[in-house]
Amino acid sequence: MRFFSDNAAPVHAKVMEALHAANHQDTAYDGDRWSKRLDERFSELFGTEVRALWVPTGTAANCLALTALCPPHGGVICHRDAHIQNDEGGAPEFYTHGAKLYLADGEGAKLSAEIIAQTADLIANDVHRVQPHAVSITNATEYGLVYKPDEVAAIGELAHARGWGFHMDGARFANAVVSTGAGVADLTWKAGVDALSFGFVKNGGMSAEVLVFFKPELAAYTPQRRKRAALLFSKGRFLAAQVLAHLDGDLWLECARGANEGAALLAQAAGDRLVHAVEANEVFLRVTPQEAASLRAKGFDFYDWGPGEARFVVSWDQGADVIRPLAEAVRAL
Amino acid sequence: MRFFSDNAAPVHAKVMEALHAANHQDTAYDGDRWSKRLDERFSELFGTEVRALWVPTGTAANCLALTALCPPHGGVICHRDAHIQNDEGGAPEFYTHGAKLYLADGEGAKLSAEIIAQTADLIANDVHRVQPHAVSITNATEYGLVYKPDEVAAIGELAHARGWGFHMDGARFANAVVSTGAGVADLTWKAGVDALSFGFVKNGGMSAEVLVFFKPELAAYTPQRRKRAALLFSKGRFLAAQVLAHLDGDLWLECARGANEGAALLAQAAGDRLVHAVEANEVFLRVTPQEAASLRAKGFDFYDWGPGEARFVVSWDQGADVIRPLAEAVRAL
Amino acid sequence: MRFFSDNAAPVHAKVMEALHAANHQDTAYDGDRWSKRLDERFSELFGTEVRALWVPTGTAANCLALTALCPPHGGVICHRDAHIQNDEGGAPEFYTHGAKLYLADGEGAKLSAEIIAQTADLIANDVHRVQPHAVSITNATEYGLVYKPDEVAAIGELAHARGWGFHMDGARFANAVVSTGAGVADLTWKAGVDALSFGFVKNGGMSAEVLVFFKPELAAYTPQRRKRAALLFSKGRFLAAQVLAHLDGDLWLECARGANEGAALLAQAAGDRLVHAVEANEVFLRVTPQEAASLRAKGFDFYDWGPGEARFVVSWDQGADVIRPLAEAVRAL
Amino acid sequence: MRFFSDNAAPVHAKVMEALHAANHQDTAYDGDRWSKRLDERFSELFGTEVRALWVPTGTAANCLALTALCPPHGGVICHRDAHIQNDEGGAPEFYTHGAKLYLADGEGAKLSAEIIAQTADLIANDVHRVQPHAVSITNATEYGLVYKPDEVAAIGELAHARGWGFHMDGARFANAVVSTGAGVADLTWKAGVDALSFGFVKNGGMSAEVLVFFKPELAAYTPQRRKRAALLFSKGRFLAAQVLAHLDGDLWLECARGANEGAALLAQAAGDRLVHAVEANEVFLRVTPQEAASLRAKGFDFYDWGPGEARFVVSWDQGADVIRPLAEAVRAL
Repeated sequence: MRFFSDNAAPVHAKVMEALHAANHQDTAYDGDRWSKRLDERFSELFGTEVRALWVPTGTAANCLALTALCPPHGGVICHRDAHIQNDEGGAPEFYTHGAKLYLADGEGAKLSAEIIAQTADLIANDVHRVQPHAVSITNATEYGLVYKPDEVAAIGELAHARGWGFHMDGARFANAVVSTGAGVADLTWKAGVDALSFGFVKNGGMSAEVLVFFKPELAAYTPQRRKRAALLFSKGRFLAAQVLAHLDGDLWLECARGANEGAALLAQAAGDRLVHAVEANEVFLRVTPQEAASLRAKGFDFYDWGPGEARFVVSWDQGADVIRPLAEAVRAL
Repeated sequence: MRFFSDNAAPVHAKVMEALHAANHQDTAYDGDRWSKRLDERFSELFGTEVRALWVPTGTAANCLALTALCPPHGGVICHRDAHIQNDEGGAPEFYTHGAKLYLADGEGAKLSAEIIAQTADLIANDVHRVQPHAVSITNATEYGLVYKPDEVAAIGELAHARGWGFHMDGARFANAVVSTGAGVADLTWKAGVDALSFGFVKNGGMSAEVLVFFKPELAAYTPQRRKRAALLFSKGRFLAAQVLAHLDGDLWLECARGANEGAALLAQAAGDRLVHAVEANEVFLRVTPQEAASLRAKGFDFYDWGPGEARFVVSWDQGADVIRPLAEAVRAL
Repeated sequence: MRFFSDNAAPVHAKVMEALHAANHQDTAYDGDRWSKRLDERFSELFGTEVRALWVPTGTAANCLALTALCPPHGGVICHRDAHIQNDEGGAPEFYTHGAKLYLADGEGAKLSAEIIAQTADLIANDVHRVQPHAVSITNATEYGLVYKPDEVAAIGELAHARGWGFHMDGARFANAVVSTGAGVADLTWKAGVDALSFGFVKNGGMSAEVLVFFKPELAAYTPQRRKRAALLFSKGRFLAAQVLAHLDGDLWLECARGANEGAALLAQAAGDRLVHAVEANEVFLRVTPQEAASLRAKGFDFYDWGPGEARFVVSWDQGADVIRPLAEAVRAL
Repeated sequence: MRFFSDNAAPVHAKVMEALHAANHQDTAYDGDRWSKRLDERFSELFGTEVRALWVPTGTAANCLALTALCPPHGGVICHRDAHIQNDEGGAPEFYTHGAKLYLADGEGAKLSAEIIAQTADLIANDVHRVQPHAVSITNATEYGLVYKPDEVAAIGELAHARGWGFHMDGARFANAVVSTGAGVADLTWKAGVDALSFGFVKNGGMSAEVLVFFKPELAAYTPQRRKRAALLFSKGRFLAAQVLAHLDGDLWLECARGANEGAALLAQAAGDRLVHAVEANEVFLRVTPQEAASLRAKGFDFYDWGPGEARFVVSWDQGADVIRPLAEAVRAL
């Protein structure tokens, strides 16, 4: 069994069905009936008027969001371990034409308003320094922690007091929603978030994420930027259809719930091996090389995460039946 | 019946099946078993060692190709009506960090070695002028003409004599292969082409094209650039699987043959209404507004192409049964 | 005697004196007493509130202006022979992060509102095409013609009706002012110009031009962009001082008058050899290779400008005494 | 007396004289007799064949160097307090099209091979991470320390073992040369440096620095990049002439010696107020706000450098006569 990443998991059957249902000629690009429903469908979900655009990858969502919030000569404050800093091959710099990422600290890849303010206060406010124009957080974080609405709101307040844009990388937004039990509005625009990368691929999707702007005017040029980045698929209906299927009957929450529950089961078994609290679907364990080898010998595969640590990510399709043997093996170490 | 564009057509059933067959957990990004077969499979097809990378759009293929052939301070010679100039929203400039497109003329969006040389010779060779570093042609062209191997070779010879890279936008490469009856090697690397954007989406695919480098060293940094452009899908296997299905049993040629035959049928009916020779699957007709309206009244839809012209693109699934009524309607005008 | 270009001419003695006068310690960058006077001094000159920033080259002025008027995904309409297209090594694309130059025609590198509108009207208004966001004209043009206030105003009206920015490359603005006898306000902001590259280097300066924004809000980020382009000199006072000296007692007009008069003298002698009307300080002549050689044999040097043409540029310091022998030699051909 | 920065100091009289001597018509851009001497003159100085190009600012030298050493998708390791990170307004990201700066630590803004290796070793070698392609050090550092030849060589060895380029920001190179007493070759190319930003402006120049490539092939496209960055002055002779005057009779060393001696005098007086060792011309002192105020009341002006610290930079023209009163005032605190 493989616990490398939720981004390697299969696609949910209902998403596959949606691809079939969309397999008829329709208007190209985003002029089709599915793509044209996104704004309304996501506005309904969030309870406010939003602009919602499909993109094929989380990196694309993040980078188009940043480009809307930060000029080329500006900076974006993010966590030192943020996906945009470490896992996107410089895409933020490419899309923003060279904006600078300012790196802040925080346990479990989680930022606080305080640490963000401290990081910003070190930057002299003159023409010689790149000035911050935006802040970006990841919810759930890269280490599986989640931000609660009031934590987001504190950052939102800071951002807006300073005139910055506020982006949330929600590659695992579904996991955060399930984990906190919070409303999607409370976790985002009501807490000051301007743009959300709403992830579906890690949660049972195939190739579609949605970039949500809570201030429609921020999206003014995003269609042009998406096109210019070679991301405007001619058969865009297949992206929109995936996402709509995911929202139908709250499939997205059901998938995330499964993954979170699996991770909780594993966390329970792991006891004080846990490196970080397990609040979503990622579990980081302290294991010796020998222990790691013994788990692998039993058929469990996962990511080595620095010396003496291992990362297990539980996917939407890995329920209790799949996790229980792993949990037992970990307990038995 | 709609003849707007082959990029709005459905996906071939065998491609859909390939998506299902790939719907199991596998290594993420391009580490899966399908993605890892691309180099070998395309090398086999072309009879030489190539590097083949999936990308989601033709624009992505074109732009990553140009970036490998032309530095930011360089220029690319292409036709005034080239897709890279007119239909990619500035993506070539974005990906190349601002290289300049030099526009050349030629009937039916087709270039010749002579006109390319003339265009280049107007550019003084000094530091004040952007110097050409590459030439890009589209085969089949944006107006449905095709280049034959010797025509490509003449351009290839010029390009290499001048030290330029040579890119072929093959969004409709399959249609050109079927039309010319030429071998794929003769149409590309044997004629000096360095990089080919090999199109599948317009030919019955869903969301995968392949960028083929005939000189593997040119691809040295393309994986990094693809990542940096937010194009490295985590579930890349679904792109590779589409393309491999398309090559199986020459499905790609079968699809293109259908489209070309449909276009030929229509061309036959159109007589001297034809604006350009019909060599692939696009048909441009001279029609008055009244004639256009009468065709539309009969249920045929298409693109108005400037005053007094209309564009009909025949898709892979629009066989004789679909085209015959249109052909008759055109003949009856 | 050399007539290659006014950009190779000496620096006026009063400008040199100004360098000496500024050779004391003062605040670095643009915090010194000279730099801080620019806004006021140029506002006074133009009779309206402007923002005026020194830059070291005309290319820098042009490119920072374009960056303020056109986003990376936009386009700029300019003449096919514009300096920004042909003589800046791709700097506009670098500074604007890849905006596209749309090339329009017109005798003597001069545009009209009509031709600009026609050029723009060919660009379909959709996400696939780069949309124009600005227009740029050169006054005096690259071929020595000048725009009169009403000609500028017609373009300004068009630009603003379409929501475009309007830039004037005034590398030889002084020559245009002298030639038309028009007021500087009438030639610029009253005619709808948003940003002017005000040239001094070709007119007896050493290394300073001024970028003037007639709508101060357009300059909001220009200081940051100037810094980011490595153009914020630490001893900026030496640039500001040059320019202020040039304005003192209308030295800039005196220099331009000298150059224009020299050119007029030469034009008179040239008769029907003139390729373009001579309205500023550039003279393009039809000369055979033999005639060109005979002029060179007499010690006159100049630029060959395509087959059978030669360009003579008269500099601020080349008065009647210098021009008369050349004029006679041309008459004698 | 002002000790804000050496970049606000006057220009040396011999440099001013050189401007006068160059004030005759000559070929524009870098075709003049002065510019054409740079390669040879700097090759002679360094005892090896170099390519030497004038640029107007240190930021321009640094950024053009980085662009030659690092692709857009690459990274540059530098100190957390490096000028390229903190004082260039994002110019490195602009010029390199978005390369990432990786920040390393070290007392007094000084790096060691060890810390650089540690910083690099944290960066996983895969397509998801921006890979280092170059290292950049500043000599003398931003805090006035100097690298000795063997310290540079250790970094050079590491850089070349890893396939990285090696850049030295020598805004105060002269001060480092004087301080170490080392040969210029030993401090640069013999220690593995590939490109040097050779500073003159802070050392009595007006507006010219020199970018020196010790491997001429690295400069292959630098003329194009300089032009494209709007840095190719038409009257480039005035930049080359400044620099040549500075080298004549080792004026550059004489100027730096004066500044270093002044700083040493001040350091001696400062005793344990020194925050960093004083090895060049910068002196950082611990002073209370009251002490700072009392110094200012006596007419000494300087930069507040964080809480409880002050920066004094001694310029080339501030000899013992100028420093002694300051030294006494500091001693008297």
